[in-house]
Amino acid sequence: MNGDVTAVRGERDLIGSLPVPADAYWGVHTARALENFPVSGTPLSRHPRLVAALAAVKQAAALANRDLGLLDGERAGAIADACEEIRKGKLHEEFVVDLVQGGAGTSTNMNANEVIANRALEILGRPRGDYGHLDPHAHVNLGQSTNDAYPTALRVGLGDAADDLSAAMSLLEDAFRDKAAEFAGFLKMGRTQLQDAVPMTLGQEFGAFAVMLAEDRERLREAQALLWEVNLGGTAIGTGLNAHPDYARLATRHLAVLTGRPLVSAADLVEATQDVGALVHLSGVLKRIAVKLSKTANDLRLLSSGPRSGLGEITLPAVQAGSSIMPGKVNPVMAEMVNQVAFSVVGNDVTVSLAAEGGQLQLNAFEPVIARCLFQGLAELTAACELLATRCVHGITADREGLRAGVERSIGLVTALVPHLGYHRATEVAQAALRNGTSVVEEIRVQGLMDDASLLALLGDPARLVGTGG
Amino acid sequence: MNGDVTAVRGERDLIGSLPVPADAYWGVHTARALENFPVSGTPLSRHPRLVAALAAVKQAAALANRDLGLLDGERAGAIADACEEIRKGKLHEEFVVDLVQGGAGTSTNMNANEVIANRALEILGRPRGDYGHLDPHAHVNLGQSTNDAYPTALRVGLGDAADDLSAAMSLLEDAFRDKAAEFAGFLKMGRTQLQDAVPMTLGQEFGAFAVMLAEDRERLREAQALLWEVNLGGTAIGTGLNAHPDYARLATRHLAVLTGRPLVSAADLVEATQDVGALVHLSGVLKRIAVKLSKTANDLRLLSSGPRSGLGEITLPAVQAGSSIMPGKVNPVMAEMVNQVAFSVVGNDVTVSLAAEGGQLQLNAFEPVIARCLFQGLAELTAACELLATRCVHGITADREGLRAGVERSIGLVTALVPHLGYHRATEVAQAALRNGTSVVEEIRVQGLMDDASLLALLGDPARLVGTGG
Amino acid sequence: MNGDVTAVRGERDLIGSLPVPADAYWGVHTARALENFPVSGTPLSRHPRLVAALAAVKQAAALANRDLGLLDGERAGAIADACEEIRKGKLHEEFVVDLVQGGAGTSTNMNANEVIANRALEILGRPRGDYGHLDPHAHVNLGQSTNDAYPTALRVGLGDAADDLSAAMSLLEDAFRDKAAEFAGFLKMGRTQLQDAVPMTLGQEFGAFAVMLAEDRERLREAQALLWEVNLGGTAIGTGLNAHPDYARLATRHLAVLTGRPLVSAADLVEATQDVGALVHLSGVLKRIAVKLSKTANDLRLLSSGPRSGLGEITLPAVQAGSSIMPGKVNPVMAEMVNQVAFSVVGNDVTVSLAAEGGQLQLNAFEPVIARCLFQGLAELTAACELLATRCVHGITADREGLRAGVERSIGLVTALVPHLGYHRATEVAQAALRNGTSVVEEIRVQGLMDDASLLALLGDPARLVGTGG
Amino acid sequence: MNGDVTAVRGERDLIGSLPVPADAYWGVHTARALENFPVSGTPLSRHPRLVAALAAVKQAAALANRDLGLLDGERAGAIADACEEIRKGKLHEEFVVDLVQGGAGTSTNMNANEVIANRALEILGRPRGDYGHLDPHAHVNLGQSTNDAYPTALRVGLGDAADDLSAAMSLLEDAFRDKAAEFAGFLKMGRTQLQDAVPMTLGQEFGAFAVMLAEDRERLREAQALLWEVNLGGTAIGTGLNAHPDYARLATRHLAVLTGRPLVSAADLVEATQDVGALVHLSGVLKRIAVKLSKTANDLRLLSSGPRSGLGEITLPAVQAGSSIMPGKVNPVMAEMVNQVAFSVVGNDVTVSLAAEGGQLQLNAFEPVIARCLFQGLAELTAACELLATRCVHGITADREGLRAGVERSIGLVTALVPHLGYHRATEVAQAALRNGTSVVEEIRVQGLMDDASLLALLGDPARLVGTGG
Repeated sequence: MNGDVTAVRGERDLIGSLPVPADAYWGVHTARALENFPVSGTPLSRHPRLVAALAAVKQAAALANRDLGLLDGERAGAIADACEEIRKGKLHEEFVVDLVQGGAGTSTNMNANEVIANRALEILGRPRGDYGHLDPHAHVNLGQSTNDAYPTALRVGLGDAADDLSAAMSLLEDAFRDKAAEFAGFLKMGRTQLQDAVPMTLGQEFGAFAVMLAEDRERLREAQALLWEVNLGGTAIGTGLNAHPDYARLATRHLAVLTGRPLVSAADLVEATQDVGALVHLSGVLKRIAVKLSKTANDLRLLSSGPRSGLGEITLPAVQAGSSIMPGKVNPVMAEMVNQVAFSVVGNDVTVSLAAEGGQLQLNAFEPVIARCLFQGLAELTAACELLATRCVHGITADREGLRAGVERSIGLVTALVPHLGYHRATEVAQAALRNGTSVVEEIRVQGLMDDASLLALLGDPARLVGTGG
Repeated sequence: MNGDVTAVRGERDLIGSLPVPADAYWGVHTARALENFPVSGTPLSRHPRLVAALAAVKQAAALANRDLGLLDGERAGAIADACEEIRKGKLHEEFVVDLVQGGAGTSTNMNANEVIANRALEILGRPRGDYGHLDPHAHVNLGQSTNDAYPTALRVGLGDAADDLSAAMSLLEDAFRDKAAEFAGFLKMGRTQLQDAVPMTLGQEFGAFAVMLAEDRERLREAQALLWEVNLGGTAIGTGLNAHPDYARLATRHLAVLTGRPLVSAADLVEATQDVGALVHLSGVLKRIAVKLSKTANDLRLLSSGPRSGLGEITLPAVQAGSSIMPGKVNPVMAEMVNQVAFSVVGNDVTVSLAAEGGQLQLNAFEPVIARCLFQGLAELTAACELLATRCVHGITADREGLRAGVERSIGLVTALVPHLGYHRATEVAQAALRNGTSVVEEIRVQGLMDDASLLALLGDPARLVGTGG
Repeated sequence: MNGDVTAVRGERDLIGSLPVPADAYWGVHTARALENFPVSGTPLSRHPRLVAALAAVKQAAALANRDLGLLDGERAGAIADACEEIRKGKLHEEFVVDLVQGGAGTSTNMNANEVIANRALEILGRPRGDYGHLDPHAHVNLGQSTNDAYPTALRVGLGDAADDLSAAMSLLEDAFRDKAAEFAGFLKMGRTQLQDAVPMTLGQEFGAFAVMLAEDRERLREAQALLWEVNLGGTAIGTGLNAHPDYARLATRHLAVLTGRPLVSAADLVEATQDVGALVHLSGVLKRIAVKLSKTANDLRLLSSGPRSGLGEITLPAVQAGSSIMPGKVNPVMAEMVNQVAFSVVGNDVTVSLAAEGGQLQLNAFEPVIARCLFQGLAELTAACELLATRCVHGITADREGLRAGVERSIGLVTALVPHLGYHRATEVAQAALRNGTSVVEEIRVQGLMDDASLLALLGDPARLVGTGG
Repeated sequence: MNGDVTAVRGERDLIGSLPVPADAYWGVHTARALENFPVSGTPLSRHPRLVAALAAVKQAAALANRDLGLLDGERAGAIADACEEIRKGKLHEEFVVDLVQGGAGTSTNMNANEVIANRALEILGRPRGDYGHLDPHAHVNLGQSTNDAYPTALRVGLGDAADDLSAAMSLLEDAFRDKAAEFAGFLKMGRTQLQDAVPMTLGQEFGAFAVMLAEDRERLREAQALLWEVNLGGTAIGTGLNAHPDYARLATRHLAVLTGRPLVSAADLVEATQDVGALVHLSGVLKRIAVKLSKTANDLRLLSSGPRSGLGEITLPAVQAGSSIMPGKVNPVMAEMVNQVAFSVVGNDVTVSLAAEGGQLQLNAFEPVIARCLFQGLAELTAACELLATRCVHGITADREGLRAGVERSIGLVTALVPHLGYHRATEVAQAALRNGTSVVEEIRVQGLMDDASLLALLGDPARLVGTGG
């Protein structure tokens, strides 16, 4: 006689009976899902925001059912307590189902129902699996369908994760803004199409990075707001069949209070049940953020190229050895990481498009893969922004004199003289300087085209050259 | 000696001289672009909204320069008149440059400058090419760079094209709404994951299509609003070098008046010059619209599958013979067209992402291909919505009795009996009905599980089955 | 004083010193990477094929260096033994670096170098960290750069993972072929554009699924073959700087022997070092496989739609309860899982494109994210094929009589009568049957268009209707 | 009585009668398509390779039907003659149907049938529309379905267009190879991760571009070969219903002879009819080509950045004025054009994936949009390669002395000294040189680490530094 004999408990579903580990909070439906979907190796628990949101939805449903007299106070209380614990971070490791699953989220929903039921049973002093007393289906899932509970939880969880990203973007924005202030007087050549263009300051360059992030955070905020419209109470297809007429309103209100979010019931629950538009929109905004973050990372890599045979305008801090073969080489590894996160988000957006397009009739069965893409994208972008800010941008330095010398030897400076020389004469000066290896100013003097006072008037004042924002 | 002698006029640029057709309004820069970019075969003139917007920007610039005393009234007037004509639809065929071009839009900008200059010269009674009197560069492009004039024109043109799409979506939305009203009492089975689920009405199904469109129009409106922030006056890189300090404000105000749009100058012109975020955003919204439109088209094709071996719930109007081999076959060709337009928009969104990500430092050189994607997407989605509304949705019919019979023989009806039977007993009834080829009601009666009054109470009232929206 | 005092060991790199866990086989470079890249949460160890391939490359390098007299027999032997262990599955949990990392794979390469060095030291009876005796850099990485060792390991690992996928595809192909044989005589209506077309057998339908897989396996095999061209010995940029002239040849030959693969040195190592074409190609082939697998999953879902209000031609085995609200509902969950894996692969292909396009000059710094996409895609497609075969296709059943009845009541049958009736008369028959709710045969008889003998001649022989392949 | 009376002729289809222009070769089915699909504005005639291939298929079918005695010699001859004319470039402007169309290509097929029928009637001395004598359906389309004729024509046309691209790639490859020879002795710094790495020659750099193209041409050739397997004779769904048993073989053989291509009948015509795998594969290869071409264009832009504040290693020829505001600016416009074509191809590949995935059961209804993507991609890539070769690569120049000076002042040169100094000492030298603004050689001499003979041995021989390929 040993522990192994009692190490499992039997559970039953429509297919038949199946043993589950005796100490597991999850039950037979989760066990089926583990058999059916050993696909990605990434369980629900990877995304705590999703797990907590599932618990919040179940808690709200229990409270609404209690208010309606459909669930007695003892059971409702135990369920609510179990959910509260999960929302505080407990039992997350019991959310074992693979993120990639068939069934439109049914396995995720049942994983939550089972964990909550068994923890509630435990709270009530009952053994796990004593579903006659408190059932994952009849009590925890009461008044719900996967088709309303799961999408609602996704929206709440994604909304929370969007806050995380917004905070990280804000951190990065601040880092760029600090650098913009530090580099405010650093005159340098601006470039268009990788060709020397006209002067600007390095502060303006870093300031633009900050502004881009600020704008993107605003778009993220708008996309987040679209998530707060939920279909809880619509049950299977949005008609609310088998749910109490007041259930949708009550459950949504409880969920709003629990989460502190301005959740509202969708006006047309049939539409809301099948439509993943808000998720597609969020994905599109993540893609926008990714694309611009990648452009920023590209710029940091370009500006720090060298140290000798590159643009060499800025120096990124060394955070690790750069090469296993080339001594002293320091690579822009943090920026490269950001690029790769961004590329993943752009690809995931295509996955989301395919999954959204594949929805049919009253439901989109592919929300699990949409959820994977979005939670992954939000988490990786959050990490990327934080890491870029703290391990790269904070430590960036620049050589003020080198930058200024670059302006002086540039051909592009001639643009500032167009008001005096005219476009055609200025073009000739530019071509002569390039041909002779001289500076524009030297060429002007040699040719006697302008006196020094005039040159000084046009070139001597950086603020004039780079505009009021300089 | 013949007409050929006078069939060309010589023009010069930085590269050298080049003959252009004597009757062409465009000049040497356009001629270079024609040589350099015979790529897609699609000229600018394909998108009248873009051509008109280019003219509007040039008109606004001329008026601002006149106000500032930088351009005399005669030249400014002639330029403005030429632009006005183009905005009214004239000379569009002179916009010959390929949509796909290197140079960040310089060739487009110069094509506009040249056509406007030559038309203005004509208005002033001068021959084409008399640039000593009125120059594409010095007068039409005065105070501008491609890098501010071109992106501003793109935004104005895209905003106009967004209005076109919005109107077409509205037309389609109305068509669905009309059908929703017509089919309001048509009880049918809803489906999730392509499996019979619970009852609904065909009206609810078509109503959801309408709601989706309404939501997407709202997103389009928001994306359009982002376009109204422009960088006119920023010149080459946003520092406004060589432009009068009041120019940006004045030109933007003139453009707002001319177009009737709430245009504003971006707060940070350096950022605005390099950032294509608003274009990426618009592309993302088009993708969202496309994905959902495609889902709708898929549903129409599914619901009309048959006529005998399919779902056969609705009939789409025949608009052409369906097959070159199968007599009497009618295919869902309008819906299939919509799918393909949608697939193109999703692909174009990836192209836009790549182009946006590829921007470097102070400019994105790839706006021309972004413009191609967006103008094409807007135009094709506009056509798709209009054609689907007028040639398909308007003529859809449904067989009310056939749909009702489907509900009666469905297994999914058992869900409505769960409140009476409980989930487990209901499952057994469902399985028995399926096994025996009976209806749920027959099975209930045979097994004596419910009396007719109870059955009637739960199943007899469609409004109860399908919710208040039914 | 307690165990904690000895729980870390100090190591040093270019940045400074850093403590690492005393019992870790990895060292300071890995520790830096753990700090720098807490991004995806997925470590290298998730992909055993990659870990084993890294060890094989290091083993081959050690053997080549020994042959060249650059590494003494004792050290070479210890390194080779350590690599051998890793290739057999040991120490995989020491490959802790995040799959998503900057640095072009340097952190992965150093993680391997460090684990191998410390295990080799252990084999030699030395303590971990005793790099004076055997150094991750000077000995394990001897003659290598990340830029040749890492891409070579990727190719070997991906080639192995491609074998896994091929085997899983073969399993699925066999499952479809078995069903094709089982359903060979099951006459049914074929459909084009979701409209009833002409007769075929269910066996032909399943046979086509098998053929598609067979063709795709062939494409996978071709893509795999491209991986066998490696750049080992090219060192930093392909010029082979600092490697012995015979090293590339020797190391590649050792690696070929160790792995049993027909590896060859690329003809142009400079090109091979920067080019990720073979990876892009593999990704494209995975996308092709995914797209067609998804189409197959869509067909299975369509054909099994119902059970009453759908096509209902086949029944998929129930592998879990289908709904938390609708009793008895069974959903096509395995097929839906396959769709989602496929959507992910299509999205990942876009990520790979972005990463490939982003390569610059002599190196592509984004191979880590390409590796993530490809290893993930291969692993998930492998799982999807296996699971679909064993948990779905094997158990599919069909109702032979129901299918035949569908043919008899179909309109499409009229196509087979065109040779007798002509296209126009046949069209009229089709329209009459549809209008009158009759069968084509009934309509023919009523109208007296053909006698029964003629009808029998054209319709009575299934083999004639469905071709020789029927 | 006037000309207008005879300006139209009436034609009839299943929907009713419709007037078509009297001088149009196309008829009622084309007219319906013009009404139904005013979508993209791009007619079939844009792609002559497709139009010619449609004619070839129709010609082959007519010859096969003649051989089988199903079509008399006079009609077969007239049809063949009409097709021959079209293949020679005549009547292309009569292929007016929009590339984007519903109906799985039926409108394209009917456009071809009608034009050929009317031209054949004309050849026979009959008026257009005299279908009683020679019918688009009964004679031109005899033995065919859109579902076999159209996909076969696509494959033939795409195969021809692939030859065009291959020739253009070859031209570009030659241009790069010429430059590789010209720059063979130009020593320069190689770069990894945009950081200075180790020496190489500019010839090696350009040689790698050529090798990449050569490899990609080989992949294109393989993808082209997959197109030669066709489903002609499968009719509606691949069962060959209503086609003579010998028809498939005969028609395919005629088509092979006409086109000079090794066409074969697919082994499983049911599979071949629904499968677009070969098109997906071609799209994937185009994407591969695009991605690598874009990488090459990026490198050209990077290497030519400057002229003063960039890498400035090469100079691209000026092909147009670079800026409307900055005098003398020359931009890399040809390379930028190439980038944009490449981005479009990557996006189109996603469109193709969506269209392929959307195929259902026995047919893929979305081949028209796949055709648009592929023909457009092939044509634009062909143009891009030709233009880049002739208008950019041919004229590239480089400053040999400047490049060599860059090597001498580089830090990366220290890597070549590692065999003498060891990795750690070399690192210190690198850091000192960077700190002191000295060259590596100066630092070595100051520190007395090596004598000049040793330095010369390691650094003096370019061939040693850059490998045998140098």
